[in-house]
Amino acid sequence: MSQIERVAIVGGNHGNELTGVHLVKRFQQYPNLINRASFETLTLLGNLKAIEKGKRYIDKDLNRCFTNQGLQNPQLSSYEDTRAKVIQQILQPPNQPFVDVIVDLHSTTANMGLSLIFSDMHPFLLRLGAYLSSINPLVKVCIHQQSKEDSYLRCLCELGFAIEVGAVAQNVLNAELFQQTEQLIYAILDYFERCNQGNIPQTNSTLTLYQHIGTIDYPRSARQEIQAMIHPQLQFRDYEPLNPGDPMFLTFEGKDIFYEGVSTVYPIFINEAAYYEKGIAMHLSQKQQEIV
Amino acid sequence: MSQIERVAIVGGNHGNELTGVHLVKRFQQYPNLINRASFETLTLLGNLKAIEKGKRYIDKDLNRCFTNQGLQNPQLSSYEDTRAKVIQQILQPPNQPFVDVIVDLHSTTANMGLSLIFSDMHPFLLRLGAYLSSINPLVKVCIHQQSKEDSYLRCLCELGFAIEVGAVAQNVLNAELFQQTEQLIYAILDYFERCNQGNIPQTNSTLTLYQHIGTIDYPRSARQEIQAMIHPQLQFRDYEPLNPGDPMFLTFEGKDIFYEGVSTVYPIFINEAAYYEKGIAMHLSQKQQEIV
Repeated sequence: MSQIERVAIVGGNHGNELTGVHLVKRFQQYPNLINRASFETLTLLGNLKAIEKGKRYIDKDLNRCFTNQGLQNPQLSSYEDTRAKVIQQILQPPNQPFVDVIVDLHSTTANMGLSLIFSDMHPFLLRLGAYLSSINPLVKVCIHQQSKEDSYLRCLCELGFAIEVGAVAQNVLNAELFQQTEQLIYAILDYFERCNQGNIPQTNSTLTLYQHIGTIDYPRSARQEIQAMIHPQLQFRDYEPLNPGDPMFLTFEGKDIFYEGVSTVYPIFINEAAYYEKGIAMHLSQKQQEIV
Repeated sequence: MSQIERVAIVGGNHGNELTGVHLVKRFQQYPNLINRASFETLTLLGNLKAIEKGKRYIDKDLNRCFTNQGLQNPQLSSYEDTRAKVIQQILQPPNQPFVDVIVDLHSTTANMGLSLIFSDMHPFLLRLGAYLSSINPLVKVCIHQQSKEDSYLRCLCELGFAIEVGAVAQNVLNAELFQQTEQLIYAILDYFERCNQGNIPQTNSTLTLYQHIGTIDYPRSARQEIQAMIHPQLQFRDYEPLNPGDPMFLTFEGKDIFYEGVSTVYPIFINEAAYYEKGIAMHLSQKQQEIV
């Protein structure tokens, strides 16, 4: 691994996820908090108009606009398509070095604690994950492998990843999660600093990973209206095992619906507000140990 | 008290408060659930366009549009002003009897459990509150006295009140709160039924009330940006005593801000998402015992 020279911290990729918005504003006001000797740290607010309006997005989800095709298509002119192109120019400026790392700050109504979402099993990121989860047991590491045609902001660079913190409602600040996220960011920056100095912190040699294997939608009517809710026994139980036969949904009539898979899975993003419209009640993951 | 002849149950006065929206849809699908022999029960979805979009409102807060002045002003033509006039026509139809009771279903990101919000100390409502809180300790009763020029939907009739359930994020269904709210509505309808039959349920003779005495805003900069969050020691502590000197806010810099009042108060609506824009971090109330 060569030196890390430029790190970008992004908040407000979704305008109603206030933790990242206010952390980035704080870093912009007090840059010393994120300055480190061996690399440059940039900050960026993602969806400016949506932040102003307290919405996830204006016309479409900004964090699904970063396909190569979309970024190169001058026909796409919605606010988010345009903003995605501007963000690409900032993070991948022509004739200048690109950022090496993107830390994209999100929050979720699911009980995800402090989750790192990686797009692949890059050894550098796995070692970072192992280090962060060793110093803070609230830190979880998820792998959400992407196709070649990636559409997330974090995919603008090889070492891009998202931090999801929760449970917190949209348009709400939770002070405890805010401070935990802030400390996590300092730990990440300090880790990079030590890597650049050839002084990589000692860490566990095994890392628990939650590997994305699919999504489950709510039971819906022919008219696509949801007919059930997350079961009370599953609500807020992200990262806990869901076994075949365990209750998963509760219909409005009060009937249990059970998980019918053949093996134990680990649901995450359970009852994320923004995923109702995407047809996602939860993500399913497999838990695995990885030697790093 | 004369007979109750018509009861209206309203959901989706705010489009992103899903508990009420889906309860009303359920009652519309299965009217037997809310039919009672001695009175008629109407159901109504409030802000139709906002429900469709998963937003609190489109142009302005519908639940602030029910002033006499506004309802009579043909110049006001925003979606919500127009919708308020339509709702008035439904609940107060010309040359027909008005509804006697409005039950307006809301949810909140504050930890309010099952809260009844009354606009005044009407003896009938106080007895209802005493009965409901005696059969379910999660039920709390708040008095939020209004000026003559009331602007809430519930103020369209003398026995109008709101139910606030939480904590639940906007655009999220919490199955446990959904079922508790549903049972609370049945208890209310059954109480009306027994009143009409001259068979008012026995109840406690004293009722704990939380009387609204004011609101507190977040500390803000000259540019009106918030500078602090609800303190972790106050978050989710609705209805608990806040004493002079107790921590109230935590600044982004990590500094505690203390409550500087002279007497103990009982905060409610702590960290309600929709109140950031209204300049409200919490409501303050006084706890009192009332003989009913």
